[in-house]
Amino acid sequence: LQKAQAEMKVQIISTGDEVLSGAVVDSNAAWIAGRLYEAGIAVDCHVCVGDDRGHLASVICQAAGQADAAVVTGGLGPTVDDITAQAAALAAGVNLKPHPEATAYLKDFFRRLGRSVSDSDLKQAVLPETASVILNPVGTAPGFTMIIDGCRFFFLPGVPFEMRKMMQDHVISALKSLAAHGRTPDFYREKRLSLFGLPEAKVNERLADLTGRIGNVKLGMLAEFPVIHVKLSGFGKNLNDLDSSLESAASLVREKLGRFLFSETGQSMEEVVGRLLKKQGATLALAESCTGGLISSRITNVAGSSDYFLCSAVTYSNEAKIRMLGVLPETLEAFGAVSEQTALEMARGAAQMSKADYAVSVTGIAGPGGGTAQKPVGTVCIGVFSPKGSYARRYCFPFENRMANKLVFAEAALNRLRKTLINK
Amino acid sequence: LQKAQAEMKVQIISTGDEVLSGAVVDSNAAWIAGRLYEAGIAVDCHVCVGDDRGHLASVICQAAGQADAAVVTGGLGPTVDDITAQAAALAAGVNLKPHPEATAYLKDFFRRLGRSVSDSDLKQAVLPETASVILNPVGTAPGFTMIIDGCRFFFLPGVPFEMRKMMQDHVISALKSLAAHGRTPDFYREKRLSLFGLPEAKVNERLADLTGRIGNVKLGMLAEFPVIHVKLSGFGKNLNDLDSSLESAASLVREKLGRFLFSETGQSMEEVVGRLLKKQGATLALAESCTGGLISSRITNVAGSSDYFLCSAVTYSNEAKIRMLGVLPETLEAFGAVSEQTALEMARGAAQMSKADYAVSVTGIAGPGGGTAQKPVGTVCIGVFSPKGSYARRYCFPFENRMANKLVFAEAALNRLRKTLINK
Repeated sequence: LQKAQAEMKVQIISTGDEVLSGAVVDSNAAWIAGRLYEAGIAVDCHVCVGDDRGHLASVICQAAGQADAAVVTGGLGPTVDDITAQAAALAAGVNLKPHPEATAYLKDFFRRLGRSVSDSDLKQAVLPETASVILNPVGTAPGFTMIIDGCRFFFLPGVPFEMRKMMQDHVISALKSLAAHGRTPDFYREKRLSLFGLPEAKVNERLADLTGRIGNVKLGMLAEFPVIHVKLSGFGKNLNDLDSSLESAASLVREKLGRFLFSETGQSMEEVVGRLLKKQGATLALAESCTGGLISSRITNVAGSSDYFLCSAVTYSNEAKIRMLGVLPETLEAFGAVSEQTALEMARGAAQMSKADYAVSVTGIAGPGGGTAQKPVGTVCIGVFSPKGSYARRYCFPFENRMANKLVFAEAALNRLRKTLINK
Repeated sequence: LQKAQAEMKVQIISTGDEVLSGAVVDSNAAWIAGRLYEAGIAVDCHVCVGDDRGHLASVICQAAGQADAAVVTGGLGPTVDDITAQAAALAAGVNLKPHPEATAYLKDFFRRLGRSVSDSDLKQAVLPETASVILNPVGTAPGFTMIIDGCRFFFLPGVPFEMRKMMQDHVISALKSLAAHGRTPDFYREKRLSLFGLPEAKVNERLADLTGRIGNVKLGMLAEFPVIHVKLSGFGKNLNDLDSSLESAASLVREKLGRFLFSETGQSMEEVVGRLLKKQGATLALAESCTGGLISSRITNVAGSSDYFLCSAVTYSNEAKIRMLGVLPETLEAFGAVSEQTALEMARGAAQMSKADYAVSVTGIAGPGGGTAQKPVGTVCIGVFSPKGSYARRYCFPFENRMANKLVFAEAALNRLRKTLINK
């Protein structure tokens, strides 16, 4: 990992007993760090403290001594736990007072809701006297900004969507202009290549010798089981140069990972498949056993999927396979429910009953029970019906876990459909 | 929120550019905090710094001055980024040297893998000279513990399952015995009540006046859309007293939230429904339109669901509703696909074709498109077929988002089934 090329240092401070005690994961800090990183602003460190006025005040004082700016989240609400404004006043050595702009905003906010404003609501407008208010367009608790000991502080609510809105509307640009004093801000670009079918360790191995060959481009990996994203990103003064460095790096990644890549736009497998079906004006039916509806649920997560998706028969029992899909009892008897033969009849049956152009079937053993020596947990047969013909394939994945198997079976089936649609 | 009743203060320090830059959320810190909290040990703060030797050393020195103990994760691996041992040595003012026990362990580890050990592997055994090794039973990087400035430090790998194993095997008990000097350690107990059908603000309102009536019991809320968990927890010297305080608090929560509660064991709605079906020896079929297979996917997430789940017809198109479920074209024509009448015929059709004892159907408008003034996005009709009769109900949820609607429709359908199974 390379560091952002920036001189200004920003601290991220999270407050709240629920974060300190581990009841809530501090995803605010990661989100803020990500946005600062993209803006070319270096993060100094994250600190998390509980709802303790004295402790928070000392963390604020310390940040003021170490960093050029700080983003503090949480503790701005109406309850007794919300002590951030008090801690900020204590750290700055100033008084608290009702802030006229924030008070007027709160009164108006509650008037529009048809509610009268209570004293505890108005407590949210009591801010350090040297603070300027940052209005919260999507909630009640206003934020504020002030300078303590030469360090610019931004105090924001802990509610993620309120904090994010205020970061995007106000804080990022304020920090960028702070950072721009004395330097030209860098552009940031990223490109994500998504792949399926190769374990993380193998991806690592294949990409190992790219380090040193991709210049200023940063190479990262993000596993979102069973998919892996290779993330290329970089900063630069010139946008064309930056884009062409990223493209050179991407073509090296393509060389190494070739046929495992399925998306370079951040699209999921179901989005890629949906786009291909839409382009061909084709329709899809599914026949799912062990995935239990997961594939059709993913297909229908995509808005507009009703244009190409007709139906799925989730046939968990053998009777359902026979009745809904017309699988022959003799096939189940001779080869078993988890077999290429059954998968093929399921796919053909789904196509026949729905008149869909394409059909995909899945039958396998997700576990934890049901495995045998010949067909261990992780075995799956995938059938495909297409205008060009039908086929079935067997795979064996190394997972013991039911959820992991459902996820990887669904991804493999969608990937089979994708390869069929692009004729590979 | 109440604080853990403990005198010892522990800091949690995470290292790594990937966490600092927000590429990875710091879930290690939350996990460690949760385990410490359960063990009755107070967390002072979390700090996260990048892979910078000097900066990490200064954070270590500072923790030594503020806390009684600290858990540091990350930076123990074989690469140049792994600088934690160096930072610890720098902070303690001691030299680094190859640790004999760790070296022997690494050599043995690689021998068992049939690989020779490289210099970069052996770098992981180079530790501050005053450190004692904490063996890593599930990976290569050993951890270590040492006292710096009177503060007990535990250095662990950043890989979550390695860190967790070493915390559980070693660190928690070491911290407990540190904390036990001068006091009896407390017991910890928690109870989780899960509910569906009431927005978070309303839950908050109903529980507001419980504060002050539940003694030492801590009341927390955890939203896992569309489900809300009310978490009751507490510390105590006497296990019976603690359990009875939790039970008194739980009965107050039951009074306030009554019919919205569906689980007091942490079980999900699909687990509760599965248990009820199994108990009655009954079978289930589904007919899903707008949920697109999500309900059957959730039902089949439960191991052993093949005992009661037969099949689901995911009928996205009207043709599929007619062909797979026998919905009458006249019904679709007269009332529309999203109607109580269609839902009822879908549920009856699913029961008929599968011979299931119970059947549930869902047809609605998940959005973003497809809403009308009469049937806006968020409208859903749920049909239920049961041995005691059939019925359908219409709901209108206030969400615009497709995923939110799929989730809430699925939960509502499972909840309808649950209420039917318990005759309510």
